Amino acid sequence: MYGSVMAQVAQATIGNSEFDRDTAVALRDPGVPGVYDAELSAGWTIITAVNGGYLLALLGRALGDALPHSDPFTVSAHYLTPSAPGPAVIRTETIRTGRTLSTGQASLFQYAEDGTEVERIRVLATYGDLDALPGEVRTTALPPAIPAYRDCLGPSDGPAPIPGSSAITERLNIKLDPATVGWAVGAPSGKGEVRGWFGLADGRDADPLSLLLTVDALPPTAFDLGLTGWTPTVELTTHIRCRPAPGLLRVSITTRNLAGGFLEEDAEVWDSAGRLVAQSRQLAKAPLARG
Amino acid sequence: MYGSVMAQVAQATIGNSEFDRDTAVALRDPGVPGVYDAELSAGWTIITAVNGGYLLALLGRALGDALPHSDPFTVSAHYLTPSAPGPAVIRTETIRTGRTLSTGQASLFQYAEDGTEVERIRVLATYGDLDALPGEVRTTALPPAIPAYRDCLGPSDGPAPIPGSSAITERLNIKLDPATVGWAVGAPSGKGEVRGWFGLADGRDADPLSLLLTVDALPPTAFDLGLTGWTPTVELTTHIRCRPAPGLLRVSITTRNLAGGFLEEDAEVWDSAGRLVAQSRQLAKAPLARG
Repeated sequence: MYGSVMAQVAQATIGNSEFDRDTAVALRDPGVPGVYDAELSAGWTIITAVNGGYLLALLGRALGDALPHSDPFTVSAHYLTPSAPGPAVIRTETIRTGRTLSTGQASLFQYAEDGTEVERIRVLATYGDLDALPGEVRTTALPPAIPAYRDCLGPSDGPAPIPGSSAITERLNIKLDPATVGWAVGAPSGKGEVRGWFGLADGRDADPLSLLLTVDALPPTAFDLGLTGWTPTVELTTHIRCRPAPGLLRVSITTRNLAGGFLEEDAEVWDSAGRLVAQSRQLAKAPLARG
Repeated sequence: MYGSVMAQVAQATIGNSEFDRDTAVALRDPGVPGVYDAELSAGWTIITAVNGGYLLALLGRALGDALPHSDPFTVSAHYLTPSAPGPAVIRTETIRTGRTLSTGQASLFQYAEDGTEVERIRVLATYGDLDALPGEVRTTALPPAIPAYRDCLGPSDGPAPIPGSSAITERLNIKLDPATVGWAVGAPSGKGEVRGWFGLADGRDADPLSLLLTVDALPPTAFDLGLTGWTPTVELTTHIRCRPAPGLLRVSITTRNLAGGFLEEDAEVWDSAGRLVAQSRQLAKAPLARG
């Protein structure tokens, strides 16, 4: 019965999915290149905050339209003020266009009550063509050791591994390695590691834009360090290294140095073909509260 | 004899050294905030290219003057066109000022023959006050295992561990772990690791600005991967986590994933007190030539 219902639901695809609809940007005026209207969806919020990776995907989409190259290679984002669901405008600038790489800047603004624009996030990004890269890989990096998907834990597997009432939880298919969810039952490992499987809940496969969401979508490493509360991102830089193969992704996030009230969080994303498809690092403010 | 000559040379200090003089920026017009003239010194070149970390320190100094906070916490730089020794102008923008953090943007331009400005590098940076941070440290990161300074190798110790005729070599006191200089004698380890001791040759101690130089000053990991030639930086993001203690620094740089003609290079910088003072990651184009 359940299976037959599932069979009737067409799997979402790249270009036709909730993620694609919710990251849509519309050129405001054909005569003014680089200015895009967008609507921040309430579907990608954690408590009341719009997820930083979703915002990055929106900015990434606008830049992919504005620049002559379509794939983000490296995106550096500085977060300025908290975003809220609702209308936004993305203003892009093409800084340099080259044969293989082009560099642009984009800012996402929302509106104050008097209509003035308030900047939420600014990014510098360099784009290229992932499909034009040579196939050679020489890597010493190894995928994270994560138990099989069926042996990992999601939001429905007991005491809220992903805490809070978060709309984004319904849109993500995250199953965490049980070794990294001790914090959900009051027993954080203290190592600063969270890892697991990642997909979009509607089955849409990953692409470079959704990888910008993926790098900031797991519960924060601060939870595994025994800290609770908000871990606001100051800056997040993501390298997209390869177009991901279809299928679920494996993601690990790690913090090695919590000091002076700040921490770095490194993410690695691996695809089903065993390729390291994205690497990111963010600087975040550490939560003040003990778990 | 040699010792007595050395004793007569006053050690350079923070604020009074070649590095400080060569990163000086001058407000162009008291009525126009945020625009600084600078002179790119030929003293910090590798072959003919101006070192990317030196450029970053120049931009960092201008932003430290323009923003209400003086210490770089996170600096994201996208490199656009190669710089050359000579005049430059740095144009900064204050994006957001907060109580503990402020964010700015800066671009370094040089001049074409017809006087038009050509952008070399653009950065987004968030600044704060390192001395205002709480002292708590919870780190799992360990300093790199490097032999004693006297057992490490510098440019004068045989077949040019730092190849080429590079003015910057005279200004740096770099001694590399012998285990990571096999490439200098045609035997790279293939691991993608280079590590060693770092100081400024005139004895000036490290500060947050000189750390921006330090993260991009060692020979590239590509050499240890058996590749020779230029490794142009596409993007480099640096986190300054702590004001460094006086004394030599330990630096390790590592590449885990060379793929599709690009590689990431991670740097860690540790001070004499055993603190992790800086972390950086860059995306660079891999050299095309085999060593």
